[in-house]
Amino acid sequence: MLVQKKTFRVTDFGTQGGRLIKEVRVGYETYGRLNASGDNAILVCHYFSGNSHCAGKYHPDDPLPGYWDAVIGAGKAIDTDRYFVVSVDTLCNVGAKDPMVITTGPASIDPDTGRAYGASFPIVTMRDFVRVQKALVDHLGVKRLKCVAGPSMGAMQTFEWGAQYPGMVEKLIPAIGAGLHAEPYFIAEIDLWILPILLDPNWKGGNYFGGPEPVEGLRQCLRTITLTSRAAGWAQRSFGRKWASPDTNPLAAPENLYEVERFLDAYAIERSRFAEAAHIVHLVRGCRIYDIDEGDSSIKAIGAPTLLISVTSDRIMLPSYSRRAYEELRAQGTPVQWAEIDTDGGHLDGLYEIQRVAPQIQAFLEHSNARP
Amino acid sequence: MLVQKKTFRVTDFGTQGGRLIKEVRVGYETYGRLNASGDNAILVCHYFSGNSHCAGKYHPDDPLPGYWDAVIGAGKAIDTDRYFVVSVDTLCNVGAKDPMVITTGPASIDPDTGRAYGASFPIVTMRDFVRVQKALVDHLGVKRLKCVAGPSMGAMQTFEWGAQYPGMVEKLIPAIGAGLHAEPYFIAEIDLWILPILLDPNWKGGNYFGGPEPVEGLRQCLRTITLTSRAAGWAQRSFGRKWASPDTNPLAAPENLYEVERFLDAYAIERSRFAEAAHIVHLVRGCRIYDIDEGDSSIKAIGAPTLLISVTSDRIMLPSYSRRAYEELRAQGTPVQWAEIDTDGGHLDGLYEIQRVAPQIQAFLEHSNARP
Repeated sequence: MLVQKKTFRVTDFGTQGGRLIKEVRVGYETYGRLNASGDNAILVCHYFSGNSHCAGKYHPDDPLPGYWDAVIGAGKAIDTDRYFVVSVDTLCNVGAKDPMVITTGPASIDPDTGRAYGASFPIVTMRDFVRVQKALVDHLGVKRLKCVAGPSMGAMQTFEWGAQYPGMVEKLIPAIGAGLHAEPYFIAEIDLWILPILLDPNWKGGNYFGGPEPVEGLRQCLRTITLTSRAAGWAQRSFGRKWASPDTNPLAAPENLYEVERFLDAYAIERSRFAEAAHIVHLVRGCRIYDIDEGDSSIKAIGAPTLLISVTSDRIMLPSYSRRAYEELRAQGTPVQWAEIDTDGGHLDGLYEIQRVAPQIQAFLEHSNARP
Repeated sequence: MLVQKKTFRVTDFGTQGGRLIKEVRVGYETYGRLNASGDNAILVCHYFSGNSHCAGKYHPDDPLPGYWDAVIGAGKAIDTDRYFVVSVDTLCNVGAKDPMVITTGPASIDPDTGRAYGASFPIVTMRDFVRVQKALVDHLGVKRLKCVAGPSMGAMQTFEWGAQYPGMVEKLIPAIGAGLHAEPYFIAEIDLWILPILLDPNWKGGNYFGGPEPVEGLRQCLRTITLTSRAAGWAQRSFGRKWASPDTNPLAAPENLYEVERFLDAYAIERSRFAEAAHIVHLVRGCRIYDIDEGDSSIKAIGAPTLLISVTSDRIMLPSYSRRAYEELRAQGTPVQWAEIDTDGGHLDGLYEIQRVAPQIQAFLEHSNARP
């Protein structure tokens, strides 16, 4: 499946925090076709470091397809022969320097000043992302969403959809998510992610644009994100106690690395090429305050049948967070199901091993009853 | 039980890495009495941020006793009416500024220069700690150890005892430990602990003595250690999503904290008063290279009956690490038992909830067969 990135524009976007963004530009992708009644659409919300490229390739020679390609496509669990799939780059997208990402955030030019927003860009929330998505699907002619689905930060947006637009969403698939709000341990852990950026002398309170960037802080931040998104089994299988170089015993000097350390450093450098430090900080702040019950919203509004997916070895979005959401929804009468990816690789197996629950996703979409 | 800290001195101490420390001074404590045949001693090895104060109080009005007081004392699982308990401050002890800690490390004065060692202090290992302990127990007249026990980093030293001095140790109790070597995920996680220190401009490669200290890095390091030593259940029970102040909604501004964040910050500041950044960095490096099979040592030598203790919710010293040690020891014929502290508070429950496995500890000491 060959796909394209397109651009969507919203003017005078009011944020949940009461601020105004004069122009929002975000990228999006669609796969399959919207039917005449506009009711065969499925919205997929992406994870923290991801973007709207959830399936297909831009060019036949791309090394990898979109992140959930194993379950999105013709004849797959989310069948693009039947459904019209939409996905949208979030505001403050991590990959702001990726030419295939279109986003609006601290690195964008503030039309009032002609310079990057920097720290003056408003804090945006999961609910803000969902409002941008709502504007897009309205614009595309979607009347009703068969389902909203997404992994990790995408699961937070999935629940926001269920609470904000209950009349428009038939089903929810929040995968490897934080539950119905950011729990305190999760808050403290994602604080840790951005700490190296905040400690970088080039950070300058988020107003580094036009000067040297907090490169070292960004790399260490991405190293931490990779580590917490994995688990012990992954490290043991991939590296064991192998040295980074056969000639340099780590016992001899602290700068002699183990292979796991070398990999994490090198991978962080690779990831940092397309990542924007200020966007990561903003995004963590948006995740930190995630709470379905914030303001006049309520989990009571979530009545759509829900399929929760978790990874048993997840160290950052703990299965217990999803389990608590499961219990709360069940207690209020929302039809809720549970599917588990039982692997030892950690959080990222919610992307790499999603095909393990493809049958449950397919059955949930086809057979589970719509909300009464 | 009132106890005292004493000082032990070793001259010309050769490290595992082949370096010489002209004078080693460490603190130690003893409880109970050594019998005439010198064979009723139990050595307790302390955890990463701890010291030899594992039971009793220095003064009747001390707010808290030593960390394993629930299981060490007259009539307790480790019964000081029967056993002579010894515990020793490690080299490079974290609490080097605590007046009740006596240690030798980067902050100590190098007799060759009259100034702090700083980065020139050798990397020391679990095996070095154990060699210092061996010199002390010899000096005290101990002929045979009924048991070596200890939590977390103390469990690493416990296994080193079993491998280095198999003829001298009757039983081992490694609690909430890393298993028989530092696994790669653990290595990468403790790298994270010291990252804020290494990023602090005052760190100066570990040669900050006489100048400004890496205070901010030290605090953030201790915050990270506290967090990874706890777990989600602890945070949920203790704080939930409560705001640090009822007037300041974290949604309104990123500097408005949740209570969990305020607690972690304040507790890190409190802990940092007595902690020495360079010692923490050295200690992490010692833990990183922990491997019973390093050099001419071997787990094959560990024949002493072993009681492994783990905490189900431990996020840093995973139960799977202890489980792997259990399997390896069992496979080679070492008598091995398993006790579990089934709580949701994380690693530190191996200290705070140790009384839950007091019956298993007592039974193991009294009834399990000594090594053939």
